[in-house]
Amino acid sequence: MPENVFDEAEYQRRTARLEERMAENELDAVIVSNPSNMNYLTGYDGWSFYVHQAVIVTRDREEPIWVGRSQDANGARATTWLSEESIRAYSDDHVHSPYDLHPMDAVAAVLEELDAANGRIGLEMDSYYFTAKAYTRLQHNLPEAEFADTTLLINWTRAKKSERELEYMRQAARISENAMRAGLDAIEAGVPEYEVVAEIYDALVRGTDTYGGDYPSIVPLMPSGDHTGTPHLTWSDRRFENGDPVIIELSGCRNRYHSPLARTAFLGDPPEKLVETSDIVIEGINAAIDRVEPGVTCEEVEAAWRDVITDYGIEKEDRIAYSVGLGYPPDWGEHTASIRPGDETVLEEGMTFHMIPGIWQDDVGFELSETFLVTADGADVLADFPQQLFSVQ
Amino acid sequence: MPENVFDEAEYQRRTARLEERMAENELDAVIVSNPSNMNYLTGYDGWSFYVHQAVIVTRDREEPIWVGRSQDANGARATTWLSEESIRAYSDDHVHSPYDLHPMDAVAAVLEELDAANGRIGLEMDSYYFTAKAYTRLQHNLPEAEFADTTLLINWTRAKKSERELEYMRQAARISENAMRAGLDAIEAGVPEYEVVAEIYDALVRGTDTYGGDYPSIVPLMPSGDHTGTPHLTWSDRRFENGDPVIIELSGCRNRYHSPLARTAFLGDPPEKLVETSDIVIEGINAAIDRVEPGVTCEEVEAAWRDVITDYGIEKEDRIAYSVGLGYPPDWGEHTASIRPGDETVLEEGMTFHMIPGIWQDDVGFELSETFLVTADGADVLADFPQQLFSVQ
Repeated sequence: MPENVFDEAEYQRRTARLEERMAENELDAVIVSNPSNMNYLTGYDGWSFYVHQAVIVTRDREEPIWVGRSQDANGARATTWLSEESIRAYSDDHVHSPYDLHPMDAVAAVLEELDAANGRIGLEMDSYYFTAKAYTRLQHNLPEAEFADTTLLINWTRAKKSERELEYMRQAARISENAMRAGLDAIEAGVPEYEVVAEIYDALVRGTDTYGGDYPSIVPLMPSGDHTGTPHLTWSDRRFENGDPVIIELSGCRNRYHSPLARTAFLGDPPEKLVETSDIVIEGINAAIDRVEPGVTCEEVEAAWRDVITDYGIEKEDRIAYSVGLGYPPDWGEHTASIRPGDETVLEEGMTFHMIPGIWQDDVGFELSETFLVTADGADVLADFPQQLFSVQ
Repeated sequence: MPENVFDEAEYQRRTARLEERMAENELDAVIVSNPSNMNYLTGYDGWSFYVHQAVIVTRDREEPIWVGRSQDANGARATTWLSEESIRAYSDDHVHSPYDLHPMDAVAAVLEELDAANGRIGLEMDSYYFTAKAYTRLQHNLPEAEFADTTLLINWTRAKKSERELEYMRQAARISENAMRAGLDAIEAGVPEYEVVAEIYDALVRGTDTYGGDYPSIVPLMPSGDHTGTPHLTWSDRRFENGDPVIIELSGCRNRYHSPLARTAFLGDPPEKLVETSDIVIEGINAAIDRVEPGVTCEEVEAAWRDVITDYGIEKEDRIAYSVGLGYPPDWGEHTASIRPGDETVLEEGMTFHMIPGIWQDDVGFELSETFLVTADGADVLADFPQQLFSVQ
């Protein structure tokens, strides 16, 4: 495993932790479809999730088994800790096949070989890339199996990060700082949006003086002008104008680990209302960050934010943060703990969150985010970037 | 619809064409999950496919209905031709919900409102982002419905491109040329891979002097050194060395339309075997391109390629091309017609393909691709980029 980014022992610990959870849930096998979870267990890293692939874990086998397309087996050899007998490939006639062939046929065959075909099998039912067809095909191929929904089972084991994972998230934070700086520096009246994103993308991939950046799981988002209320529209040919608000949300990525960062800018002198809003958001996010410590629940952290904004007469009950780390397109969130009302997850050392509150008033919006680590002493904010409304003159 | 990239009549023609297909297949409704198909029918364009969303088409309603997350409804207003009553949003507690809520509940509610809940409903069973859970939730919510698999129904209606679509693909081809040039210019012994990809990404987004580029559906792929046989590994911190082969596959993107392009380079004087291989591939791809004309089948085009390589003693029966155009991550392929043995699809004017043959011999590989349009006179290759093995000194 020449290019592994973690040593074999770390992968083995992860697999062992999953196998404990499988025992608790009386699962004989889990079919892992989420590319982040596949990477977490094996190290597998490639842009091959546009075809079906899987990692299969059984309780009595130390190594997971990777199943993928034949032309990706070399990628599995290059990036995983798995031995040759744990790498299985299906032939190319299974890909977008006009014949009665489907990659899940190969997955089912491995379960049969492992004597798990009649067992209780976990499926990531609501995971990206595990399609309805993949499911019905497994039902067809494994008529004796009992299926259970394990969509977030592995995601939850990812919540607390190891030292090595944190090292990559800190490296990603350095890249985020560089990319945010590049973006803010490029904004200017008359410049088209795409030129600013070109600078951001260049910085995201160029990384730092000592290491490069990976592709982030979400493209840089930069709603501006009338569009700051449409958070997921991507850039256009529009040229910036004086009077435009601009929100930049981006993330550096290192070995698939993210450290997202958002800031807001304004071309020209910002209206008073926007300045006031920015002050409230900055006070609120820091109140929430200050509330972070092991033993506190997610909803208690949200309450600290809400206390601040309520004092300013703002009523809003949103998710303000989510667990973050390893990811593949289309998302860098882990889909587990959220800092929102009703989430009673207890914070523990080693958890990492992206906190991204925002307030929109009178059509002006301000967003500012931080990615932080829960430590014994409270939150450790990973990026070092000024918390302010940036005025571009 | 201030930012629509096609006029309303074009979207209406597309919807009408789908409704004809629905009639032929006795479908009362189709639930569209594939982001490319959602865009094709409505214009919707946003990085929101990391949550569930859908477009619903029924045979007796002229406008499709968009269903998505509340915070994305403004994006639907900004990018689609739909009227306000055709834009439906679900509340944020449906997103990665710890409650018993799922976005498909909102989709099912629309089908009930449209009196289609007891009908025959098409689902894109093997489409990206239509998960197993989305399917079982619809089964639960719509117990009287009869479901049919319409995974490629809309994709097939996308095969023949309109003049406007071709305009965007030609614009994308200009971007591909610029990005390929930027990549080849940046490769040098001692330079890390990520720096070359940073240049490529910058060029992909910066576009041309008159318009910018969108994010491509696949990141630039650049296997090099020992890794030219692992096509889907992404870049690393490795520095290029003399003697490295490098394959670059990328695509410019304009309003979500792609025009992919691949070329091979070698640092230093290429080995004789690689030069020979490049000559064979270039002769073969041009033989296949010359065979293209309306009325010819996909497999006949592949045969023209195979005739050439067989003359050189090479046995290989691969897919060498696939239908291409509109796309979202993780893929720019349309998953319909393939130029491979056994595919009897008849070529028609307006179809577009990415042809990407490659040959590996003695551990050296050469790949060269073109995106082309089928015209009355044969293939029109969209990019203008030298067909050769690039030697980087």
